[in-house]
Amino acid sequence: MSVAKRLGWALLLAPLAACATVAPSPAPVADPPAGMQYLYGSGEGAAISAQAWNGLLTYVSAKIKSRPTDSVVLADGASLAAPRFVPCGDKPFAAVFDVDETVMLNIGYEYHDAKTGRGFDAAAWDAWEKTGEGAVGPVPGADRGVAALRGLGVTVIFNTNRSAANADATVRAIKAAGLGDAVHGRTLYLSGDDSMGSRKDGRRATIAAQYCVIAMGGDQLGDFSDLFNSAQPVSARRAATLQPPVAGLWGHGWFVMPNPVYGSGLKGGFDDIFPMDKRWAPPAGEAGR
Amino acid sequence: MSVAKRLGWALLLAPLAACATVAPSPAPVADPPAGMQYLYGSGEGAAISAQAWNGLLTYVSAKIKSRPTDSVVLADGASLAAPRFVPCGDKPFAAVFDVDETVMLNIGYEYHDAKTGRGFDAAAWDAWEKTGEGAVGPVPGADRGVAALRGLGVTVIFNTNRSAANADATVRAIKAAGLGDAVHGRTLYLSGDDSMGSRKDGRRATIAAQYCVIAMGGDQLGDFSDLFNSAQPVSARRAATLQPPVAGLWGHGWFVMPNPVYGSGLKGGFDDIFPMDKRWAPPAGEAGR
Repeated sequence: MSVAKRLGWALLLAPLAACATVAPSPAPVADPPAGMQYLYGSGEGAAISAQAWNGLLTYVSAKIKSRPTDSVVLADGASLAAPRFVPCGDKPFAAVFDVDETVMLNIGYEYHDAKTGRGFDAAAWDAWEKTGEGAVGPVPGADRGVAALRGLGVTVIFNTNRSAANADATVRAIKAAGLGDAVHGRTLYLSGDDSMGSRKDGRRATIAAQYCVIAMGGDQLGDFSDLFNSAQPVSARRAATLQPPVAGLWGHGWFVMPNPVYGSGLKGGFDDIFPMDKRWAPPAGEAGR
Repeated sequence: MSVAKRLGWALLLAPLAACATVAPSPAPVADPPAGMQYLYGSGEGAAISAQAWNGLLTYVSAKIKSRPTDSVVLADGASLAAPRFVPCGDKPFAAVFDVDETVMLNIGYEYHDAKTGRGFDAAAWDAWEKTGEGAVGPVPGADRGVAALRGLGVTVIFNTNRSAANADATVRAIKAAGLGDAVHGRTLYLSGDDSMGSRKDGRRATIAAQYCVIAMGGDQLGDFSDLFNSAQPVSARRAATLQPPVAGLWGHGWFVMPNPVYGSGLKGGFDDIFPMDKRWAPPAGEAGR
């Protein structure tokens, strides 16, 4: 995770911030935000995560039976409109995953954030990376899923924007979430490992040079390609996910996990989210209702 | 959709309601709620929907090649812990879907709701069912998905809690969303078709008596079985989705679509969402941050 990944927070808590001009301390929070109820508490959120992991295992089980020509990592210079992929050659199989809200739920941090109502705080997040291992859990299906992948002979590699400075603590948190062992530089890539900051394409290229990457998983589009984050405005970014051939990759090599709590999916004003030709108001007889 | 499905709204808008004690009219809304940004505007939301539809088509394509013994509709008297399913016999294939936020995005209604900041209103929703056909769209992947199912010889049946009194308007809205033709009583089942209100098990039994139902799709657990809505508290309902053999059905017969905007997934206080043993606060040196 990076500060950039968290920017959606500010919008989610904007109504509370407006209240704060009246009350000097944050208003008591009655319930967690809707996105947290969905992601950390609901059966629907658990089911859609389990569905992604079930689909991933079915896909990978079939894929390793006949070695694919190409990895699912985009080759250098590829575009979303005309994707090309790193060749597999005879490299060993790997699957590459983001960590936060992809394989691991940051339950303790989100509790703190919701309860204090302060919004995202980079210093608190750094403390969480260092000390949160007791308050994490697996994304539903992820613990069983990564174990099954390893059982199939597929190396599980984590590519996260947690800080390289906190590598040891992140290894412990991954273990505590039931996701097994990770080794920095081998099966764990972090922000700071190269000069590209939170952009992950460089780390993906490093991994794909050593492995035939048959599946990737993430909760943010940047977990699949940095190219999505060049697509602007919000509507163009959405359209890029639904344009062939990229549209066919979801669930077939690229696996998305739900995250309505923070990140690049939580952006946009009314004009971004609701097209002008899809607006509605009750007819006159219903007005005022 | 039913009023019950919408209860999550009140929680989402609670911060604005708190502000209203200061300002007599609803505060201007700067941006749509986070859940709407995710579901109606983001690439991540589009990708996870497309992923579910891609997975569904792969699953169904394989399934129809060797006729399954059982439908994916639970038999009368089955439990989630020990599920039994309606036998397929030689009945024709069908796939059963909820409508709202499963195959159709209610873009116009949610715009109205977010913009006015009034929360869910049953009368406005009824007006929307009657007049909304110009402001709907397909869930990403659903228009192509239902067309592909029909091309495979699978009958597409909609089972929604929209009102039977508005059947004709709902047929028009389904068509307008690019989802083709639906016929009330044959390929469209509505609330009011039987005496079970918003509970769908009776309608599912009617459908499964005539068809071998090889896939179901929904955004709410009640779209798969009413039994989920007997599971209480919130944590038990979530646990019910992850208990074998139900855990194995997600993405393998039962297909979940994302909905962090309203419904049964948006419930629960802090004690429901954040287990006591997974809470965290920054260590003393970080306190106050």
